[in-house]
Amino acid sequence: MQVPAGELLKRINSPSDLKQLSEDQLEQVCQELRQYIIDEVSVNGGHFAASLGVVELTVALHYILNTPYDQLVWDVGHQAYGHKILTGRRDDFHTNRVYGGLSGFPKRSESEYDTFGVGHSSTSISAALGMAVASKYKGENDRQHVAVIGDGSMTAGMAFEALNHAGIANANILVILNDNNMSIDPNVGALKEYLTSITTSKPYNRFRDDIAGVLAKISSIGPDAYNLALKIEKSIKGTLLKRSNFFEALKFRYFGPVDGHDVKNLAKVLRDLSEIPGPKLLHCITVKGKGYALAEKDQTKWHAPGLFDKITGEIKKAKYDKPQPPKYQDVFGHSIIELAEQNPKIMGITPAMPSGCSLNLMMKAMPDRAFDVGIAEQHAVTFSAGLATQGLVPFCNIYSSFMQRAYDQVVHDVAIQNLNVVFCLDRAGIAGADGATHHGAYDLAFMRCIPNMAVSSPMNEEELRNLMYTAQQENMGPFVIRYPRGNGVMVDWQRPFKAIPVGKGRIICEGEEVVILTIGAIGNEAVKAINVLNTEGYFPAHYDMRFAKPIDEALLHEVFKKFDKVVTVEDGCIEGGMGSAVLEFMADNNYKAQVVRLGIPDKFIEHGEQPELWAECGYDAASIVISVKTLSTIIKAHTIAS
Amino acid sequence: MQVPAGELLKRINSPSDLKQLSEDQLEQVCQELRQYIIDEVSVNGGHFAASLGVVELTVALHYILNTPYDQLVWDVGHQAYGHKILTGRRDDFHTNRVYGGLSGFPKRSESEYDTFGVGHSSTSISAALGMAVASKYKGENDRQHVAVIGDGSMTAGMAFEALNHAGIANANILVILNDNNMSIDPNVGALKEYLTSITTSKPYNRFRDDIAGVLAKISSIGPDAYNLALKIEKSIKGTLLKRSNFFEALKFRYFGPVDGHDVKNLAKVLRDLSEIPGPKLLHCITVKGKGYALAEKDQTKWHAPGLFDKITGEIKKAKYDKPQPPKYQDVFGHSIIELAEQNPKIMGITPAMPSGCSLNLMMKAMPDRAFDVGIAEQHAVTFSAGLATQGLVPFCNIYSSFMQRAYDQVVHDVAIQNLNVVFCLDRAGIAGADGATHHGAYDLAFMRCIPNMAVSSPMNEEELRNLMYTAQQENMGPFVIRYPRGNGVMVDWQRPFKAIPVGKGRIICEGEEVVILTIGAIGNEAVKAINVLNTEGYFPAHYDMRFAKPIDEALLHEVFKKFDKVVTVEDGCIEGGMGSAVLEFMADNNYKAQVVRLGIPDKFIEHGEQPELWAECGYDAASIVISVKTLSTIIKAHTIAS
Repeated sequence: MQVPAGELLKRINSPSDLKQLSEDQLEQVCQELRQYIIDEVSVNGGHFAASLGVVELTVALHYILNTPYDQLVWDVGHQAYGHKILTGRRDDFHTNRVYGGLSGFPKRSESEYDTFGVGHSSTSISAALGMAVASKYKGENDRQHVAVIGDGSMTAGMAFEALNHAGIANANILVILNDNNMSIDPNVGALKEYLTSITTSKPYNRFRDDIAGVLAKISSIGPDAYNLALKIEKSIKGTLLKRSNFFEALKFRYFGPVDGHDVKNLAKVLRDLSEIPGPKLLHCITVKGKGYALAEKDQTKWHAPGLFDKITGEIKKAKYDKPQPPKYQDVFGHSIIELAEQNPKIMGITPAMPSGCSLNLMMKAMPDRAFDVGIAEQHAVTFSAGLATQGLVPFCNIYSSFMQRAYDQVVHDVAIQNLNVVFCLDRAGIAGADGATHHGAYDLAFMRCIPNMAVSSPMNEEELRNLMYTAQQENMGPFVIRYPRGNGVMVDWQRPFKAIPVGKGRIICEGEEVVILTIGAIGNEAVKAINVLNTEGYFPAHYDMRFAKPIDEALLHEVFKKFDKVVTVEDGCIEGGMGSAVLEFMADNNYKAQVVRLGIPDKFIEHGEQPELWAECGYDAASIVISVKTLSTIIKAHTIAS
Repeated sequence: MQVPAGELLKRINSPSDLKQLSEDQLEQVCQELRQYIIDEVSVNGGHFAASLGVVELTVALHYILNTPYDQLVWDVGHQAYGHKILTGRRDDFHTNRVYGGLSGFPKRSESEYDTFGVGHSSTSISAALGMAVASKYKGENDRQHVAVIGDGSMTAGMAFEALNHAGIANANILVILNDNNMSIDPNVGALKEYLTSITTSKPYNRFRDDIAGVLAKISSIGPDAYNLALKIEKSIKGTLLKRSNFFEALKFRYFGPVDGHDVKNLAKVLRDLSEIPGPKLLHCITVKGKGYALAEKDQTKWHAPGLFDKITGEIKKAKYDKPQPPKYQDVFGHSIIELAEQNPKIMGITPAMPSGCSLNLMMKAMPDRAFDVGIAEQHAVTFSAGLATQGLVPFCNIYSSFMQRAYDQVVHDVAIQNLNVVFCLDRAGIAGADGATHHGAYDLAFMRCIPNMAVSSPMNEEELRNLMYTAQQENMGPFVIRYPRGNGVMVDWQRPFKAIPVGKGRIICEGEEVVILTIGAIGNEAVKAINVLNTEGYFPAHYDMRFAKPIDEALLHEVFKKFDKVVTVEDGCIEGGMGSAVLEFMADNNYKAQVVRLGIPDKFIEHGEQPELWAECGYDAASIVISVKTLSTIIKAHTIAS
């Protein structure tokens, strides 16, 4: 059945529609799917290059596998746009990453085809192995379990842990290594170089391109033939390869490398592999951004470019008449260089986020002092601890939600030893369109309970610079500086560094009846709220706590001597956060006041713009206004017992 | 210089004394050092088999390296007793693991020879790499950096992350793989099988035993010769090996396997390797428990056997006239089998702690339903999540402090998806002699802030069983059950299962003026305290909260209507824990009472017996008595402001 160009994708409302097509039609599906992604992302935004790179793989997988019975796990999931479009979400795809719309990542509650919710890297093999072991236990021996994981994600420890278990678990799992040489930034590390060396070995490739099919055919004859096939394969490998294979050391059967953009061959290989039991790895070479020339050329820029003109490739940026405040990440990126020029002890570390946290600036300016260690948060922290034992001062920049990956290392390797490692937690608080997996909601709570730790958050760019300056002074211990995604509030932010006394807050404005205690950039919402409140005759005070730990006890003594109505505001979870630190201070000092804590409530917050989500959580300026007004006039409903 | 047997070790007060000896004397040192460890551990307790296994390696390292200038990092560190004895701590070694005495692990504050504090596994390569990169940056090119890591520790993801970085970091690091096929229990996983396959390859071994020395000699001629040597090595490997090498794939130069009990050869190999720059791995085969026949034979039992008769090998156990309460871990181990017999959905998962958490019972009884996944907490949690997506109910048992390793996986893979994974956190609270690295101090705080999570802790064995029963019921989400190291309080603990309403506490005793709110087994200290207090005319009430989340709001309304003096007691950190949850409830409901929170204060607690440390922290029975009495008679020093 010939279908006119541009008419095929429309007819695919589920993988079963895809399966009706002939193999010869798959290329057309790929073409239309790729164009659909370009059309949609250019006008609605989102992740871009990763999904373009796996168009053929996505089509081939849904063509061959019996999804959702067969279980497909996308690692990270920002490459799963094609998967979403093919699995019934094409017409909703324009709502991708919009408040109330589709998630930018696979999500179990969104579709039965989304077998496992993702967002952070390197979980897919563990999850798929869990599914495979469950199938084995239930006797569902015909079920396929596939994890698609990038070479960047493969550098994270948990991927290795999963391979180590899968290699001996005797369960039916296929790991597809989507090797495009990239994380968001270029992938780094020994494994990446190893993969490149495999890929560039030509004779090996030619041989390996055919082997899967031959083996499958022999295998289907029966168990004896299968064992014979194994022996043949082993012997051929021994003679031909004369080289190491990392994955076979882990008892995976290795196939590939194959061209990840040859959809018909991919379909053939996947069909063949589905006949082979046990742990298998298919090494698939793809180009991130495939089919959009500019994205192929600058893959980091086009990872998530924002809106763009799909014809010219011009990335649309808001135009302003006057200078705008910088992103917090850029304040970090520029300031660490300034500090490092003054202090030869300073080093910069990022686990695979050079462009996301702007450490790329220092990596370029001072290549011997700034390191991208790969997607490896645990190593990043303990490597920093190792540097710190030698008297150096590492600034370890990790997104707040990714810091959850290295919690033990923070406690065990940094805090117990009281080492001066500075943790710069970017994307702290509500992170926006990436949603529940990416909000940095818990850092104040999980950092505040660690002894020796200073936990701070700047209200603006100048404060960020000053906290960075403070953290690298002599004899500081572990020091957290958390700041949000997005832009600050100061146009002339590049002011001289000034030290801040550790554990000291500051008074933003004095006032009466109610005091608002904030921490971090969300304090600027309180400023807006007070502007409104003043016009309505309410004059609350506003103090910026700056530190959740040590909490400013002198300031709090003042607070509780002057006020019995307090609103705390933080862009973080309400349980165990800065507000709770205030309550603990009150209890320890036997102060009794009415305290309303605003922050992220006890539920997972989905995706949307930051202001939308602050409003949903009840701590944007408008919500603060309401809280202050309510508190100012409240009739106390409860009284002290006894 | 001939020294009589038994007289050599005494003369070694630092590695410089060791260096004075001839190579021929090293075996005698090893013999005496081994005997010293046997003598000391048999009467003072501690880890045993691991240190016996590395006696020769320890002696050879300190003989060849220029410690502490050269930097030696012991992974985990329970094998470092020989290291401690040779580095000036021989005469204090009888205080090992005793309150106020030496730590059972290397510790920076204890000795300049302890370059990095350890306790949890798999940190050594990251730390040593940090040191090596620091040396490179400082131009200290003659400095050696050595990580000694077991094959068990090598299965943890962070070790792989570190190898991946070290392979391309161009820094001077030697990783010694102490391959004894063991964690505490037998090591598991594909990598272990791979290492065994290398080790049992005889011709390969003979060749590899010599290669390091030859290479070093050629290298010393000059850079051209060095490059030539590299080529020769590569070519020989290619022809002879025809096999994979995992570590060379990661761009480490691989040497070995060598016999880890041939001290003279080890010294020679280490000297040779010190001439070779860049990342190197020496694969060293050792026997855990070497030199003590019983320990060699049952390595798990002799990992940390307690006190024993060194002649007969009889392990000394306290003798009791009547039955004693069981260990909590055994209540878990037996109860999960009972539950799994009733509920076919239940599975058991442990990351390398089968004997430590007693899941070994289920692994034996139901081998298809209980899994040791290796030292791999991250994978253990996400693997459990994968199982749970298929409707199974995994009980994932992880020591509280090791759960810090998998925090992101708890949030991202389990809680966001609201999956019914039951986290049994053994060794929660003060863990005892293992010290600061092993206390499960933070779990209530870091778990309580996660949405969807139930966080519970049983006061006794029956409660543990009932919480386990409750957690596996239909439609439960993520569920934490934390319980301490050591024995419970009930002799007849094997009572029928009963469901507990989630978030419901219970009244232990009613009383007047003051209420004590406890969570977990530390509640038994409150019981003791009340027995004392009653004799002195104080009659506080005592409620067992059971859950830190959801907190029992109905019970707390009762509490605050009846009492204005509250003592909270928890075997966990004071910041953000159960006591803080009570304060949050008060604030949200505008109750005003005086609350004294007892728990682990804001500092790291060293090693000792649990009761000693509870006393230090101020929440043993005697401290609770004082708190209640103080509160009962206190004159309120502070008043409410305004």
